This record gives sequence, C-alpha cells and structure tokens, in this order.
Amino acid sequence: MADDPASGLEAGLLADLRRVARHPAARGLIDDAAVLGWPLGQDLVATHDMLAEGVHFTPGCPPADIGWKLVAVNLSDLAAMGARPIGVLMGAGIGTGRDADWASALVKGVAQALERFGVALLGGDTIRSGPTSVLALTALGSVPPGDAIGRIGASAGDELWVSGTIGDAGLGLRVALADGFGASDAALLKRYRRPVPRLGLGIALRGVASAGMDVSDGLLIDAGRLAAASGLGVEIRSRAIPLSEAALATGVPAAVLAALGDDYELVFAAPADRRSAVQAAADGAGVRVSRIGQLVADTGVRLDGGVPDRLGFEHR
Amino acid sequence: MADDPASGLEAGLLADLRRVARHPAARGLIDDAAVLGWPLGQDLVATHDMLAEGVHFTPGCPPADIGWKLVAVNLSDLAAMGARPIGVLMGAGIGTGRDADWASALVKGVAQALERFGVALLGGDTIRSGPTSVLALTALGSVPPGDAIGRIGASAGDELWVSGTIGDAGLGLRVALADGFGASDAALLKRYRRPVPRLGLGIALRGVASAGMDVSDGLLIDAGRLAAASGLGVEIRSRAIPLSEAALATGVPAAVLAALGDDYELVFAAPADRRSAVQAAADGAGVRVSRIGQLVADTGVRLDGGVPDRLGFEHR
Repeated sequence: MADDPASGLEAGLLADLRRVARHPAARGLIDDAAVLGWPLGQDLVATHDMLAEGVHFTPGCPPADIGWKLVAVNLSDLAAMGARPIGVLMGAGIGTGRDADWASALVKGVAQALERFGVALLGGDTIRSGPTSVLALTALGSVPPGDAIGRIGASAGDELWVSGTIGDAGLGLRVALADGFGASDAALLKRYRRPVPRLGLGIALRGVASAGMDVSDGLLIDAGRLAAASGLGVEIRSRAIPLSEAALATGVPAAVLAALGDDYELVFAAPADRRSAVQAAADGAGVRVSRIGQLVADTGVRLDGGVPDRLGFEHR
Repeated sequence: MADDPASGLEAGLLADLRRVARHPAARGLIDDAAVLGWPLGQDLVATHDMLAEGVHFTPGCPPADIGWKLVAVNLSDLAAMGARPIGVLMGAGIGTGRDADWASALVKGVAQALERFGVALLGGDTIRSGPTSVLALTALGSVPPGDAIGRIGASAGDELWVSGTIGDAGLGLRVALADGFGASDAALLKRYRRPVPRLGLGIALRGVASAGMDVSDGLLIDAGRLAAASGLGVEIRSRAIPLSEAALATGVPAAVLAALGDDYELVFAAPADRRSAVQAAADGAGVRVSRIGQLVADTGVRLDGGVPDRLGFEHR
C-alpha cells in the first residue's frame, strides 16, 4: 500500500480501504506489500485488468457499480481458468473531477463484490490519475497443478458450450446510454453494471472442459478466439444461443446479441462424450449451460452455416 | 492478458509484451490469466503501485525511463519486505496523445528493468486510458514464512540505518524540471529516472532488521513513519546522512536532501547488538549502509535535536 497521505481525498480513500482489508495478509495496509501464506502445492493464477473512464465506463456510471465491475471482470478471468479466487490488489486512479464521496462509493462497490465472492482485499495504491479516472485490479487465485483451463486444448469435434444467457449486458449498456428505462430493463442494466463471474462453474469444469475463456467482447468473436487458439474454427447455431426473457422481449436477433459483449459468461469446449459431465458440473454450480455448436477443422466463425456480419467488439 | 486487438497501438503493444513475456507462466499472453507454480512453503508477497502522467512523471519524460521506474518502484516495495521478486503484471493505460513508438519504448524500459533484476512478465492489460497515461504494476515475490520485514517491530533504542546515498534522485528531479544539465548532473538524473531497488540488501536483512521500509517520499518523513508504526519516534543526525559526491557538490544541506524523496533506498531499524550483522548483510549485498540515528520512545522526528521545517512529500 502507498504511504499514508496527510489529508484529503487519498486519506479518506485509504481509511475506507483499511475497513475492507481485514484479512491478516493485508497487514492493515500499513506495510509496503501484502504477505500471504500460499496454499501448499497449489499453482498461483494471476490476472490484471483495467477500467478507464470514458472507455470502459461512462462518466455518469454510479461509482459503486464501477467498483463492483472492476472486481467482477477480473474474477471472471480467474473463473475462465478454473481458479479459486483468493485476493486482489486495487489501483485506484481517481480523476481530478471526482470528490471523496465518489471515491468512497467506488470502494463500497469493490467491498460488496469482494464480500459476495469471498475474496480478500490485500493491498493496492491510491493516486490522483489526471483528468479522468483509471482503475486497475490484480486478482490472485489458486488451482491444483495441471488443472488450469486454458484457451488452447480443444479438438475438432468438441462441442461448444456457453453459460447463462447472452446479450443481456449488451442490452443493458444501451439502457445506460439512453439514460432511461422501465421495470423490465432494470434487470438488463444490472447485468451490464453488476456482472457475476462464473466462479463455481469454472472450478467445476476442471478436467471436464478441454478449453475455455470468458465472454467479454461478444460470444461470436470470443468463441472464434477460443477455436483459433487451438488452430480450429467454430460453428454456432443461433437458435441454440441462450437468451433471457428480457432479451427475447426486445426482439433483437440472437446473432446481434451474440456480438454485443460484456456478458462475462464462460464459453468452453468439451468432447461429446463428456456431455453428462458438463451438465453435472453446471448443476453442481447452479448455473445453466447450453450446447451451442462445435469446434471444426476449418478456421473462422460460422453462424447457421454463414459468416456473421459482425463478431463483436475489437480493441483498436 | 486482454484479448487480441485487431490492429493499431494496442496490437503493437501486445506484440511487444509477448516478446518480453517468455516465462512459461505467462502462457504466451494467450490466456485470461498467468499460471505459476508457487515455490513450496514460501509466503507470497504482493504489491501494486501506479504512476500517472503529470503526477508521477512529466509528459516529456523518456518513456523507457517511465517503464523502468514502474518496475523499480514496485520491486523496491518487495525489497523493503525482504522478498525475492518473481514476476509482475503490468497495466498499460496509454493516453490518447501517445503513439505506438512511445508505447513500444515504454515496454522496452519495462523489459530492461525486468531483465536487470531477473523478474518475469506474467501478464497484464493494455488499454487507452483517456487524455493522459496511467500505468499500473503488480509485483509478486516470495519470502520464507515469518521472515518478511514489516514497518512494525522496532524497539526504543534500536539504531536507524539507511542504504546508499540520499537526495540524489530528488536533485535529479530538479535537473529534469530545468531540462538542462551538465556531465555531473547526468548521474543525479539517472538516480531519479532509473532507481535501483535494494533487492539483495532486503533479502540479506531478513532476521537482522527489526523493521524497515523503502524511502519514497523523503528520508525524514519515511523514517518518521517507520518509527510511528511501532509507536515510537526517531532521532536523526544530519551529519550521518550519506550523501554522494554529486550531491555534496551542489551545497544543498543534508536536512533538505533528506526531505526530497524518490531515493528508493531502504531505511530500517536494528538492535545495537546486531550492528555487525547489519554490516555483514550490507557487505554481502554490495551496498553501503549508514547508521544515521536511533528509535526513541518520544514520538515525532527530531533532526540534530530539533524538529525539521519540512519532512518530505505528503500525498494530498
């Protein structure tokens, strides 16, 4: 943790963080680093994602939701690898236009997500980042040696699965941008602002999925990346893509919803003879999974036999 | 690591990072997270510091120096705890005004520091951060259980030590701000832009130092924090503060140099009967250490019996 600021926003932020960082490894955020007894014989799984104002969240987004999402998107990366989350380090770069209340609400959202998913705040840094806020988080988890699920490992003929429902968060973003929504849209907005990482499913899929990742940029593009990592292509049936009641009610086609992104569901491959093992893993985790296609030798993404107009969000 | 961008600056940055991230734990930056076999029975030490343009570095600072410093300041936190560094995750938030060459040079500086200190790039994220650049880094290290050096643990009567020389980096900052310097100033500028974490000394001080931390905001304020963590105060002799030839040549008093900060030296306490053990640790690490004062029961910082005008940099 950074040194104690004498006063002002950073001091308040540090006091807030100290109330959250109760795990002994955080050492009360007094020391220069956290010290954590590591579970014997377990591999360490580590990921780091940033969220920037104006890029990953709108200036008007409630700060508690930003804090939640910062934790959730990183834990989703751990879930994709089949890792059990242990702790996080947070980098809070607070923009010059933000006040202590905004920073405090941000930490509240972080704390809510950490409590929900049973993860410790181990340390971090609080700075003034310039004109806009830039947030960073490192999530640490454990996995038994050799059990991590990677993007590489699928074979042609493996079936393609996805968890939960697709497109809700992308629709929720549209709700947020329009800045007005009715009762049924609140659920979509929540899917966008408060994603739930599929941690239990990821752990249950160890030894079952041949390859996997989380869906952040859109189901189609991410399924294509999963296949490409193994030198394969993927065929997807649009009618098999799982949609929520709220998404169905919008009338937006599945092919469009599958290109929206921000779902933080898991997309994964498994041999056809593990179909019941996949279902058992999902049942155990209490998560719906849907079989939406298969991995094939021909590279590229095909939806209902054709090439989709748009796969999803590409970083430029 | 983030998903593969299709083109542009982020794609080039990811390609650069892939050339650096050759450790198998990084999995070629293909997966959502790194997977690292953890050294059996060792505790994990984790720290996270951010650097923001206009706050921690000037817009005109050479990007390779920024990359070096990003690594060095985080490794300095590991050094302070007596940890052995293993790997880092980097969050590169590139400002809109920066081009691919700037980002590439940034990564080059990161790579130079990682190679110099024998540390692996495990993963991270590359984003467009808004108007200014904001960089984040998480450093992971190991320490035998119970051996970590913390800020708490000093006793009244312990002697206060500091490594290296004090004030060079602070003078180097003045050189950078004036944007012109002669031959003798180049060494000071280098101390500011390319700090060297005292990793070997930190490890050697396990079981020797009763408490310690690194000097980032200024020797006086940081020594005060070290003492305060144990409920103590500190008395420092200005004539004992170690100064380089270049610093002496400026004629700036030691009391001023000790309030400048950015030194990234280690300040630590040790019982008087461990004086020879401290010296042996320093000799083994090839680092000069100086005995500059002692921990006392009366709280606060006293320099030559008086209270200094200014202790160092306080975050506001």
